[in-house]
Amino acid sequence: MILDIRQVYVSYDDDKKATMSEIRQNIITRDWVIIATDRAKRPHEFTRKDTPKIEIPDYRHDCPFCPGNEHLATKEFLRIEEENQWKVRVISNKYPALSPEGERFRWKIGINSTITGVGVHDVIVETPKHNSITALLPEKDIYNLLLAFKLRYEEIAKDTRMETIVIFKNHGESAGTSLEHPHCQIAATPVVPYSFRARIQEVMRYFDDYGDCIFCRTALDEIAAGTRIIAENVNFIAFVPYAALSPFHIWIFPREHTSSYEDATLEELKDLAKILKKVLSMLYFGLGNPDYNFTIRSTPLAERRTKYYHWYLSIVPRITKQAGFEMGSGMYINPSLPEESAEYLRNVEIPIPPKW
Amino acid sequence: MILDIRQVYVSYDDDKKATMSEIRQNIITRDWVIIATDRAKRPHEFTRKDTPKIEIPDYRHDCPFCPGNEHLATKEFLRIEEENQWKVRVISNKYPALSPEGERFRWKIGINSTITGVGVHDVIVETPKHNSITALLPEKDIYNLLLAFKLRYEEIAKDTRMETIVIFKNHGESAGTSLEHPHCQIAATPVVPYSFRARIQEVMRYFDDYGDCIFCRTALDEIAAGTRIIAENVNFIAFVPYAALSPFHIWIFPREHTSSYEDATLEELKDLAKILKKVLSMLYFGLGNPDYNFTIRSTPLAERRTKYYHWYLSIVPRITKQAGFEMGSGMYINPSLPEESAEYLRNVEIPIPPKW
Repeated sequence: MILDIRQVYVSYDDDKKATMSEIRQNIITRDWVIIATDRAKRPHEFTRKDTPKIEIPDYRHDCPFCPGNEHLATKEFLRIEEENQWKVRVISNKYPALSPEGERFRWKIGINSTITGVGVHDVIVETPKHNSITALLPEKDIYNLLLAFKLRYEEIAKDTRMETIVIFKNHGESAGTSLEHPHCQIAATPVVPYSFRARIQEVMRYFDDYGDCIFCRTALDEIAAGTRIIAENVNFIAFVPYAALSPFHIWIFPREHTSSYEDATLEELKDLAKILKKVLSMLYFGLGNPDYNFTIRSTPLAERRTKYYHWYLSIVPRITKQAGFEMGSGMYINPSLPEESAEYLRNVEIPIPPKW
Repeated sequence: MILDIRQVYVSYDDDKKATMSEIRQNIITRDWVIIATDRAKRPHEFTRKDTPKIEIPDYRHDCPFCPGNEHLATKEFLRIEEENQWKVRVISNKYPALSPEGERFRWKIGINSTITGVGVHDVIVETPKHNSITALLPEKDIYNLLLAFKLRYEEIAKDTRMETIVIFKNHGESAGTSLEHPHCQIAATPVVPYSFRARIQEVMRYFDDYGDCIFCRTALDEIAAGTRIIAENVNFIAFVPYAALSPFHIWIFPREHTSSYEDATLEELKDLAKILKKVLSMLYFGLGNPDYNFTIRSTPLAERRTKYYHWYLSIVPRITKQAGFEMGSGMYINPSLPEESAEYLRNVEIPIPPKW
């Protein structure tokens, strides 16, 4: 039973509430988000109107990710094949931000710390077809992609120089990609990023105070509330977070408590493929193929099995712009109500039935 | 005396160092930044090539910030006048993210916290002239702008519903502004943003461990090193941080330890006007008028005079794009060497001599 104190507040002064925006706290990230109802738009207003209708070919002779051009890649780490045709390839990034060669080595200059830039920065080619779109891939192809993440994650995790692994996708130019051929990236860093450490300290405190995982608790609360859930299956739930940092920000949580993506079972990956395809299709058909980033966050490698951290996948459509306010305060402004965004997504008609 | 351990490292294996990027920690924000030397560009390569040459008029009849259109503003909080002509105006934002009306009121739904969206969101019109550019304003006009920040800061700080004040500017479309007429913004929030709290805890720990302010220490270190300093005067230093999060990221620190912007004396504001104009001119002439954000961070209002926190101004040119890696890890990738960026800026020729 969740007591909705807001109901009480609203009834005591309905007018005041109606004219005032609210600031919601994301209890997991501890970020405060201004839900700017005065600026609020109806969900359909976020639909991309200028969807480019450029014809993209299904093969390009100069694309390093297209079949036949495999030799253009510096190194291949793994491939998933079916009937002698690769379906997914993990290759090294041609312009890596971090290099897998070399020693992990720290030094100090005064109070400043530096570490050698060893790390991993791979590209995962999602499909042989140049003009595919992730949301439109068969579920089986998305499963293969997720499986490649897991296999590569397990491999990277053995490298004792690495501390944190981040998996991510940039879809569309405003999300930071310039390559058409669908691909994801996997990066490993030789340090634990501060944002990980800070959040871990917070969720650890919650664990100490309440005795359970704040992610598990959030999942149960979201299921009970129902208003922000957009998709569910046996192993996963997808929802718009209570303090979504931007319109249609989506979190996908495994129901079972596990700290690290590599612990996902093959059965879970099947369910993740289904829910991810469904959610990406909602964005594609409901909002006109918006640019987006998705990221998968796991616990740092030094603490791969904890009771307090829970891996998850976060999708942030690139709909709003961050400017000086966000930079100066670290807070966000979301011009949409998370409950309305969720309702809109739940009602998106997906014209193509899911296909494994 | 600062021991440069890196020198030792470099001499012991110069080749290895040369091919490897390094990851630097910003000891104040605790963010790790990949200095991607493999991707590094020479400073002049960041120069904006498509500088729009659109003729902007010096007055627009439909611009709410132009003289004669003052009635279009909802409310004016203060103006600074000279010879019966206003030079700077602080007015309410027509589309505020936070509203000054109403009660500060918190409630909980399950584990989620919410607070009413009371706050301040003002616009500071920098000059009556529609087509001015901040970098090109006389120093006296910038001083008036900085003075307006201070006067408004002092006023807002009296409102006990407010916890944190952020001053910021969005210059150019990619920095989040759509209005041509030069303006800044000032926002006050009824909560302490998490990023403030987290950093404060870190600088407090430094204070407890070492007995001094980490900002003061950084200023002394930067002056001693010299390589990242781009401008100095009696009261301020401007430098590219050791772990600059993007090319030409600049910090301006007051030399005197003060926690809050409102404590800046009029003498200090004069010096700040001079150094800010100089630095913005370096960007304008050196990089072709890039889009940028600047923000001024002070301590939260509940702790306005501390020994451990030091207010500062941060300028982030919008030169690189943040994508999935940054979103997933909270780390940054800077494709330039801070020392090279600083050297480039120091050598920018500013064709117009400074004028008060």
